[in-house]
Amino acid sequence: MLGSLPSFSRLVTELSKLPGIGGKTATRLAFHLLRESQEEVGALATALVEMKRNLSFCVRCFNISEGDLCRICLDSGRDDTCICIVQEPQDLIAIERSHGFRGLYHVLHGALSPLDGIGPEDLKIPALLERLSNERISEVVIATSFTIEGEATALYLAQLIKSADTKVTRPAHGIPLGSDLEYIDSATVQLALDSRRDL
Amino acid sequence: MLGSLPSFSRLVTELSKLPGIGGKTATRLAFHLLRESQEEVGALATALVEMKRNLSFCVRCFNISEGDLCRICLDSGRDDTCICIVQEPQDLIAIERSHGFRGLYHVLHGALSPLDGIGPEDLKIPALLERLSNERISEVVIATSFTIEGEATALYLAQLIKSADTKVTRPAHGIPLGSDLEYIDSATVQLALDSRRDL
Repeated sequence: MLGSLPSFSRLVTELSKLPGIGGKTATRLAFHLLRESQEEVGALATALVEMKRNLSFCVRCFNISEGDLCRICLDSGRDDTCICIVQEPQDLIAIERSHGFRGLYHVLHGALSPLDGIGPEDLKIPALLERLSNERISEVVIATSFTIEGEATALYLAQLIKSADTKVTRPAHGIPLGSDLEYIDSATVQLALDSRRDL
Repeated sequence: MLGSLPSFSRLVTELSKLPGIGGKTATRLAFHLLRESQEEVGALATALVEMKRNLSFCVRCFNISEGDLCRICLDSGRDDTCICIVQEPQDLIAIERSHGFRGLYHVLHGALSPLDGIGPEDLKIPALLERLSNERISEVVIATSFTIEGEATALYLAQLIKSADTKVTRPAHGIPLGSDLEYIDSATVQLALDSRRDL
């Protein structure tokens, strides 16, 4: 039945290419869009095209950007001697939201994963090394994810970067604010106890 | 941070208007699309626009259609004395998939729901009554959902339609094929027993 409606099945095919959206959800979304006004659907189509036309990645730090350099690289108020390395632009956004960091960033666009065949050349690591040799950086904060791949990437980068005049740090592990010890996984509790501080 | 990227936040806003897609999922989808090639994103945008341009509802039965009349209404091989009433085009597709019905359809685009202010005038019921008086219909199968609203709509339509020369039927309730009695809700089991047949 849907096979006789090529424009409908084409939309379902396109929607089901999105992550986490299978055939059934795609069909449900297509039926929803069918009921929406021409303007609503047009607005979504335009937003897609415009996003693709306007956005790219910053040539310096690989954050999302509307120009060659992103808003953070252009901001002269930021500390350009300190770089925070993150895996994805989403991680950068999370750090910005915390207002806990006033330096620049470098987005790797992934983490090392030998099993998936992702090596240093597949990430923005060569560009990072170039930045480190060209810019005067005194501290590198490695804020890759606290997963196996993220930790391995952090370790790899730390060995690569560490030198007499560049300090390499990593955000602290510990108990999240406002959480109940009862519900925290024991590996985190153990790490938090290992890194206990004087009060 | 995302506020400084208007084309990104516009896409997130548009995506989060879709049913079942909240702000976080919309952001995740937008990041995925950002990484996709221009062609991929363009294909989705085109599919959206084309679907809206090409598809509308059949003027006779209100099924989805690429022309004035849908493929089923145009098919001369179908029994045009029998109409199956369904709530949504999706229900029609499910019945077509079963190959259990060879007549025509009428899509109501909803069910009666006084609490939500949905009365007969908000559905395709006036158009149905017009069809019944203009076409020679000998049987109407009311295949609205087996929910409270669907059952109420079926009852309402049965009283409205039933006449000397039009038979009104409803698909049978019972135990689904291949299912284990243990896991069927007791109301269904009760109904199946009430409607037991001779072997």
